[in-house]
Amino acid sequence: MRDRAAVTYWQDFTTRYQFPVVFGRGLLAPDSDVLINALCIQEPEKRHKILVVVDAGLAEVVPDLMSKVIRHVDVHSAGMELICPPIALPGGESVKDSDRFFWKLMQKVQTLGVDRHSYVISIGGGSLLDLVGFVAATAHRGIRHIRMPTTVLAQCDSGVGVKNAINFGSSKNFTGTFAPPWAVLNDFDFLDVLPPRDRISGMAEAVKVSLIRDREFFLFLESAVDRLANFELESVEALVIRSAELHMAQISQGGDPFETGSSRPLDFGHWAAHRLEVLSAYELSHGEAVAIGLALDAHYSALIGLLSTSDCERIVYVLSRLGFSLWHPALLKEDANGRRAVLEGLRQFQEHLGGRLTITLLSDLGTGVDVHEIKEDTVLEAIGRLRERFAT
Amino acid sequence: MRDRAAVTYWQDFTTRYQFPVVFGRGLLAPDSDVLINALCIQEPEKRHKILVVVDAGLAEVVPDLMSKVIRHVDVHSAGMELICPPIALPGGESVKDSDRFFWKLMQKVQTLGVDRHSYVISIGGGSLLDLVGFVAATAHRGIRHIRMPTTVLAQCDSGVGVKNAINFGSSKNFTGTFAPPWAVLNDFDFLDVLPPRDRISGMAEAVKVSLIRDREFFLFLESAVDRLANFELESVEALVIRSAELHMAQISQGGDPFETGSSRPLDFGHWAAHRLEVLSAYELSHGEAVAIGLALDAHYSALIGLLSTSDCERIVYVLSRLGFSLWHPALLKEDANGRRAVLEGLRQFQEHLGGRLTITLLSDLGTGVDVHEIKEDTVLEAIGRLRERFAT
Repeated sequence: MRDRAAVTYWQDFTTRYQFPVVFGRGLLAPDSDVLINALCIQEPEKRHKILVVVDAGLAEVVPDLMSKVIRHVDVHSAGMELICPPIALPGGESVKDSDRFFWKLMQKVQTLGVDRHSYVISIGGGSLLDLVGFVAATAHRGIRHIRMPTTVLAQCDSGVGVKNAINFGSSKNFTGTFAPPWAVLNDFDFLDVLPPRDRISGMAEAVKVSLIRDREFFLFLESAVDRLANFELESVEALVIRSAELHMAQISQGGDPFETGSSRPLDFGHWAAHRLEVLSAYELSHGEAVAIGLALDAHYSALIGLLSTSDCERIVYVLSRLGFSLWHPALLKEDANGRRAVLEGLRQFQEHLGGRLTITLLSDLGTGVDVHEIKEDTVLEAIGRLRERFAT
Repeated sequence: MRDRAAVTYWQDFTTRYQFPVVFGRGLLAPDSDVLINALCIQEPEKRHKILVVVDAGLAEVVPDLMSKVIRHVDVHSAGMELICPPIALPGGESVKDSDRFFWKLMQKVQTLGVDRHSYVISIGGGSLLDLVGFVAATAHRGIRHIRMPTTVLAQCDSGVGVKNAINFGSSKNFTGTFAPPWAVLNDFDFLDVLPPRDRISGMAEAVKVSLIRDREFFLFLESAVDRLANFELESVEALVIRSAELHMAQISQGGDPFETGSSRPLDFGHWAAHRLEVLSAYELSHGEAVAIGLALDAHYSALIGLLSTSDCERIVYVLSRLGFSLWHPALLKEDANGRRAVLEGLRQFQEHLGGRLTITLLSDLGTGVDVHEIKEDTVLEAIGRLRERFAT
C-alpha cells in the first residue's frame, strides 16, 4: 500500500566545542588557580562536585599525590568539593583492555550521584584518560571531564585530542566516542617523575607530527636531539607544546574533527604501530611501536622514490638518537596462513574508517602525502631493511 | 617548582549535523528508492555495506519482514549489499536492560568488518533503536546508523531525536550518547500491525509535546480523539508527523541539542514516568507511564493554581479517551524509609543533568513553564486525586 508520496524533512544543526588547554607547572600546588578556573568556566558561584581518578602507577612514584589533591581541593573548598577520596585505577593498557574498569567506574559515577554538571578529573597517562573519557562521555550521555595528562605522550598528543576508547576483541580502541573534554591541564611537573622508558616513548608522536606537518619543528627536534635524549626540561617542554599545538590545529582547522572522512591525517606510521602493539602483546608501548612504524613508513617512502634516502636517514638518526629501538621481532610474526601478520594492520586501518585505503607517507621532512595503495612486497622489503640495520 | 607562568590555549571548533527524516509508506517495497537515496547521500557510486537489525517482536507479526528486506536489497544490489542475513534482537526494554546485547552486537560489528563508512540499519521500536544506536555510536567511535522506527512512540518522538542509551543499575538510560543518526525512515505501514496496546501508548508523547509547545496541535488531538482511539490512519499519521516536527524543532532550534544546560525541555511529565516504569517493573510501557506522568503534573499545575481546572480536565479527557489508564499502584510504593518511592524520580531527574532542579509544568494548553521547586506534599495530593478518580 503506497497511498501517498513520502515526505522528507532535513534536520540540520551545529554544535560548538570550546575548551582550554593549559601548560604549566605546579597546577596542583595549593595556590594554583588553574583547576578552579577550569571548573568555574560556567557557574562561577557554585561549589562544584568533583570525582578524581588517578593513575595507580603515578601515585606510586608521586607518593604525596593523593594528599596533594586533597589539600588542593581543601584550599579551594569554596568552589570545589571532592565527592569521595581520589580513586586509583591501573595505568597502562590493562585499564582499557576489557570493559571491567569501564563498568566499575560507571558504577561509582552512579552510586556517588555524579551528574552532568559535576566533573570527573583524570590524572594519568593516555590509557587511563581513554578509559575515564569513555565513561565520562557515556554516563548520563556525557558528564564533564577534565584531563590532566601526566606523560609526554598524553601531553603532546592524545590528551589534547577529542577521542576516547577501550579495546574490544582483537582491536585496540575499537569501542569509544569522540568527546571533547571540558579542559586539558598539562602539568610539566609530572614529567620529572616519568620512568626513563616513558620519557622517551612519548616523543615518537612529536617526531611524527613534525614529519607530516612542520619542517621547522623537525629541524628543532634534530638540533635538540641530545638534550631531548637527556630529558632536559626546556627542550622537552618545547617539544610537548609544539606537538600539542599541531595536533590541536589539525582538529580545529582540518575540517573533520570527528573523522567522518576517509583519511586519518595524524596517523602517519600508525597502521603498523597499532598492530605491533598487539603482536608484541603490548611489550612495545604505543610510542615505541609508533617509532618503528615511522621508521618503516619512512623506508617505504624512500623505497618507492617519494622521499630522498638522505631524509630517511635523518629520520632514523633522530629516532635512534632519542633512544628508540627501530626493530622488534613482532615484525616477523606470521598469521595462520603464513602471511606476515603486521600487514593485517593495513586492512584494520582501512576498515576503521571505511572508504578507500588512505595511508600517509612522506615526500619531504615536514610534508605528509596521502596514498591509496600500499605494495605489500615493498613493505616486506622495508621490514627487511629495518631487520638488517637494527635487529640485534 | 613554578618556573614559568602557565600558558593557556583555547581549542574551538564546530561540527554540523544534517540528516533526512522521511515519512511515508512502503519504504521497503522493491521499487522504493527511499533507502538507497539515504545510503547514497555520500559516495553515490559505491556499493554500500549494510547490517540490518530487526526487532524480533516485529518480525513475528510481519512474518515476511526478513524476506522483504532481503528482496529489497536484492533489487537495489547495485548500491547496497547485506553483509549478513538480518539479525533479530528482542524488542522492548529487555534488549537494553543490561550490556548483554550491547557487546553481542559490538562483536557482530567487529567480526563482520562493519566500518565507519558502512551502515547499521535498525528496524523496530524505541528500545531496539536505543540499543543499536549506542552500539553504532561507539563501535569504531561511530558508524553510520539508519533508523527505521516502527511504533507510534518511536516515529513521533525518540526515533527523530539524537539520543541513545541502555539502562544501568537502577537507572533507565543511564549509559549512552548523543549521536545524530545518518537518516530516519518512518514507514507508516509498520503502524498497521502494531498490537493495540502499542498503538495508543505512543500517543502520550504527542499529547505531551502539544501541551508544552503547540495549542493548535492539542486542539487537533482533542477534536480527533475518537478517530485516534480507533487508530484511523489519517489522524494517526497527522499526529506522528506534527509530533516529530515539534521534537525536531526543539533539537535544531532550542539552542542546546546535546542538553548541556539544566533544562530538559521536552521531558514534561517524565520525572514520574521514568520512575513508574522501573517501579512497575516495566509492567507500564514508556507511553503508559508518560500518560500518568502528564496527568500527575497537570493536576499538580492545577493544584498550585498555575493551570485552570478546566484545562486540566481537557487533558484528562484526551488521555482517558485515547484509552490510557491514569492510575497505577506503583504510585503508592514506598521505599525503605517509608517515603513514596516515585518522589525519588525528582532527585534522579535533577541529577541526570545536574544544576538546579528544573521541572516543566503547564500554565495553559500549549504552554510549558519551567519551575525550580516542587512541593512534595502537593505531589502526594495530586497522586491522591489520581487515585480517587482513576483507581479501579
